[in-house]
Amino acid sequence: MSDDPSCAGPRVRMVPPGDDRERLVCPECRYVAYQNPLIVVGSVATWEDRILLCRRAIDPRTGFWTLPAGYMEERESTMEGAAREAWEEARARIAVDALLAVYDIPRISQVQLIFRARLLSPEIAPGPESLEVGLFRWDEIPWRELAFPTVLWALREHEARLGQTSFPPAVNPTPDALARWERML
Amino acid sequence: MSDDPSCAGPRVRMVPPGDDRERLVCPECRYVAYQNPLIVVGSVATWEDRILLCRRAIDPRTGFWTLPAGYMEERESTMEGAAREAWEEARARIAVDALLAVYDIPRISQVQLIFRARLLSPEIAPGPESLEVGLFRWDEIPWRELAFPTVLWALREHEARLGQTSFPPAVNPTPDALARWERML
Ligand SMILES: [Zn+2]
Ligand SMILES: [Zn+2]
Repeated sequence: MSDDPSCAGPRVRMVPPGDDRERLVCPECRYVAYQNPLIVVGSVATWEDRILLCRRAIDPRTGFWTLPAGYMEERESTMEGAAREAWEEARARIAVDALLAVYDIPRISQVQLIFRARLLSPEIAPGPESLEVGLFRWDEIPWRELAFPTVLWALREHEARLGQTSFPPAVNPTPDALARWERML
Repeated sequence: MSDDPSCAGPRVRMVPPGDDRERLVCPECRYVAYQNPLIVVGSVATWEDRILLCRRAIDPRTGFWTLPAGYMEERESTMEGAAREAWEEARARIAVDALLAVYDIPRISQVQLIFRARLLSPEIAPGPESLEVGLFRWDEIPWRELAFPTVLWALREHEARLGQTSFPPAVNPTPDALARWERML
C-alpha cells in the first residue's frame, strides 16, 4: 500500500454506511476491511504414550514448544485444517479422534479448536515453521518452555481424558484449575 | 472503492510475497485482503418444551425460519456471541448450557458453533433482522420452511440429546442420518 500515494490502505476506524460497528476503512478508496475472529485449528497427537510437540522457528515465541496448530484456511473443514497443520509443522500424518477443547481468546479475537488425534506413524520431521519436533512422554514434556498458555491447557485436558471415548470439549480453564496447573510446573 | 479511479480495491487473485496461497490483492495499493473462514455462533434456545425460532427479514432466505445465529464479532467469546445473536434477532435473554454442534461448511468457508441454551424468560420480540419470532413445540416446528440445512440438523441433534447433560458436540450428519431426517419432513 505504499507505491500509490493516493491510497494508503484500510486504516481509519469508522462505521460504514448500513453497518453498526467501527471497521477499518481506507479513506481514499472506501474499501472496508472487515475484521473477524480467526479460527486456530490444532491437535494433541500421540504415538503410543508420547505426544507430538514442535519447537517454533518463527515469531512469536521462537524456540518454545507448541502443539501443531495454526490458522484455518478457506475451503477446508476444521479436522482437515488440524491434519494440514500437523503435516506442515511436523511432517506428521494424523487421524483425528475427537474435539478435545474449544478455547475463546476474545482479547485477540481468536477461537481455538484443538482435536485429539493419533499419529499414523512415528515418522516426523520439522516443517519450515519448526526448529525441531519430538515425541514426548508426559514426564519429558518441556513444561517451562511451552509457547502459549493454551498448549498447557490442552495437554492437561488431554491427560484428564485418557481412556475416555465420549466427552464434551474442554473450555477455558477456571482460575482454580489454572492455579493448580501452574503449581505443578 | 469507486470514487478514486487510481485504486479499485482488492480484486486480483495472486500469491503475495512470503505467502504460499492466492489472496485477493489490490493491484494499485498492494493491499492484501486475507480471506479467512468465518465463525457463525447460534443456539437452540428453549423455554420449557418450546424452541425459539426467528423468521428472517433479510436475504438470504427471507421469510424462512432459522435459529438465532450470526457471525461472531471481534472481542467476544463464542458463548457471548450466541447470547448477543439471541438478543439481536429475538430480543431473547439466554443462558448457554452446552456446545450442541460444530458444523463445517467448507464450500463457503464457514464454521458454525451451535449451543444449547435456556431462555431466561418467555418474553421475545423480533429484532431488526426478524419478521417474527416464535416458541414452537416439536410438532409445531415449520419443518418445510426452515432457512438452512444446519437449522434442521441442529434441531434434530438437540432432540436426540434431551435429558443428556454431558455429550460431545454433533458434527455434520452422515448421508444416512440426512436421508432419514429428510424422509421425516
Ligand atoms: Zn484504498
Ligand atoms: Zn487499493
